[in-house]
Amino acid sequence: MINLQAPYLLFLGDAKDQLAAKTAQGIKDWRPEKCVGQLRLWDCKATLGLQDMTLQEAWDKGARTLVIGVATRGGKISAEWHDCIMEALDIGYHVASGLHARLTQIADVSKKAADKGLDLFDVRHADGTFECGSGEKRSGKRVLAVGTDCSVGKMYATLAMECAMLARGMKATFRATGQTGIFIAGSGVSVDAVVSDFISGAVEQIAPANDPDHWDLIEGQGSLFHPSFAGVSMGLLHGAQADALIMCHEPTRKTMRGVDYPLPSIEDCMDLNLRCARLTNPNAKFIGLAVNTSALSEAEATTYLQELSDQFGLPAVDPVRTGVDALVDALASC
Amino acid sequence: MINLQAPYLLFLGDAKDQLAAKTAQGIKDWRPEKCVGQLRLWDCKATLGLQDMTLQEAWDKGARTLVIGVATRGGKISAEWHDCIMEALDIGYHVASGLHARLTQIADVSKKAADKGLDLFDVRHADGTFECGSGEKRSGKRVLAVGTDCSVGKMYATLAMECAMLARGMKATFRATGQTGIFIAGSGVSVDAVVSDFISGAVEQIAPANDPDHWDLIEGQGSLFHPSFAGVSMGLLHGAQADALIMCHEPTRKTMRGVDYPLPSIEDCMDLNLRCARLTNPNAKFIGLAVNTSALSEAEATTYLQELSDQFGLPAVDPVRTGVDALVDALASC
Repeated sequence: MINLQAPYLLFLGDAKDQLAAKTAQGIKDWRPEKCVGQLRLWDCKATLGLQDMTLQEAWDKGARTLVIGVATRGGKISAEWHDCIMEALDIGYHVASGLHARLTQIADVSKKAADKGLDLFDVRHADGTFECGSGEKRSGKRVLAVGTDCSVGKMYATLAMECAMLARGMKATFRATGQTGIFIAGSGVSVDAVVSDFISGAVEQIAPANDPDHWDLIEGQGSLFHPSFAGVSMGLLHGAQADALIMCHEPTRKTMRGVDYPLPSIEDCMDLNLRCARLTNPNAKFIGLAVNTSALSEAEATTYLQELSDQFGLPAVDPVRTGVDALVDALASC
Repeated sequence: MINLQAPYLLFLGDAKDQLAAKTAQGIKDWRPEKCVGQLRLWDCKATLGLQDMTLQEAWDKGARTLVIGVATRGGKISAEWHDCIMEALDIGYHVASGLHARLTQIADVSKKAADKGLDLFDVRHADGTFECGSGEKRSGKRVLAVGTDCSVGKMYATLAMECAMLARGMKATFRATGQTGIFIAGSGVSVDAVVSDFISGAVEQIAPANDPDHWDLIEGQGSLFHPSFAGVSMGLLHGAQADALIMCHEPTRKTMRGVDYPLPSIEDCMDLNLRCARLTNPNAKFIGLAVNTSALSEAEATTYLQELSDQFGLPAVDPVRTGVDALVDALASC
């Protein structure tokens, strides 16, 4: 399991547009208190609105991990980046990367980190050792976000719930299962990178037994109806032993992400998730829906959410438009 | 994907009992024509009934891969084994192992193999590169064995069907998804060792598009109802795009292997598998049941199989007691 040392200096490199810095943006949006500043190369086209700093300036202000939160052209690490990473290690930074290419496989970077006793984190990869899932009931309560597809707002919904629950004085912890979530939480496991024998076991490990009134908010991945990734979603569902499930959806999407498959109906998706979830938690139930309505007008969104709520007899929210208070209220019934 | 060069010399090492040589036994039972002989150390307690040979004798009779088909005490490779593996490489053998410990991580073994241009195969591990599953319909037909639990005879059922189909002159290929199956088939991928993002993709790769009248017989793994491994089973089911499903079961088992969970009913298990299988093949259907009745008397087995057959309106066989002809007959309906 990855554990990052905050605070961070966010490295944007030569991001070619704002979207390329999406991971860094997520960290800044959800954990501004962990972000000391940003470091941009001369041709960077993105900004997070944070103060631009050199490695040394950020170090002097307390930054301890350099976070590479940017997608690159072709996944390469340019010479300019390489020099910056090496200098960061010289100063004493740990370095964390969300790139496909591994820091640990760059010989001189790997050697310098080892020599200086510093950590390199390739958060897209899961190098830890996990046990097979036991399926044994554990204490504490858990929410899992599931979806009709990939990228329908599962991370956003659970982060928003954590925020709202902490504001109410509830015990709540977001548990990251993907790279952006790991940067935000500072720890977690990229479950789609875990060897498949250990998917449910890895989830049991990142969301372990806890106080009876503590809620883990587990980031979901993929969909049971996605022909590429349903195995990940299934293992995640079993490992989570969720008491409360949130159904996430994007109503204007026509096909599953990356494949030519139609989206399942919300009804089918809830039914199959519930059936499978009850293997490891017979009391699992849906407590609400979280919908990304950004492609709808305000009036359309309001109507759509009301219709969903009527159809399923559950609160239906858009975490961005309406907030997630109705979902947090619904947890009281679990 | 692993591809082994036959024929094999089967290394039994210092197997402490016959069960420890179970993998080698499977190879000898299903592919006797690939087995030149056996190599046993002085304190070996197992035999396959093959001729005992030295490395050189077997080489002279054509053996090209030394297969370590034995479980060890504590997964260790003893000094005696190590010398034997090094000598095999000196002679020119490729070496394949079903151990958890990796041949490729033994420095001098790895170096010698590289120097001589020989292959080391750690068949429990999946080091290949896979694509994510596409879910795209492919030509050819496929059978997948699914089960109420792990270790209920899925490999045996599909191997027996391959045998019966080839005897009838049908086009049939067993596709291995686990270590013993890989040794038997000579190729395959241990899907539970694949990174979870690529489970369905790996299955698409090992059972690729084929002639319209060709049947792939895909070895199943785990169970959708096993809290540790259901993610593997789900990805396998989606990647297989099976036309025909075989339900495998062991009627005297009380709990799922390795965990304190009851077995699902056969009915529930068939229903959930069918529902999920139809995502990638809307025409998927069960064509029969394969039951391991070894713990039942002949009379009990006959009654039990007849009851199952009546209940589901499908042939129910024990591949060992009754053979699988009834299952092969049923393929005609697909």
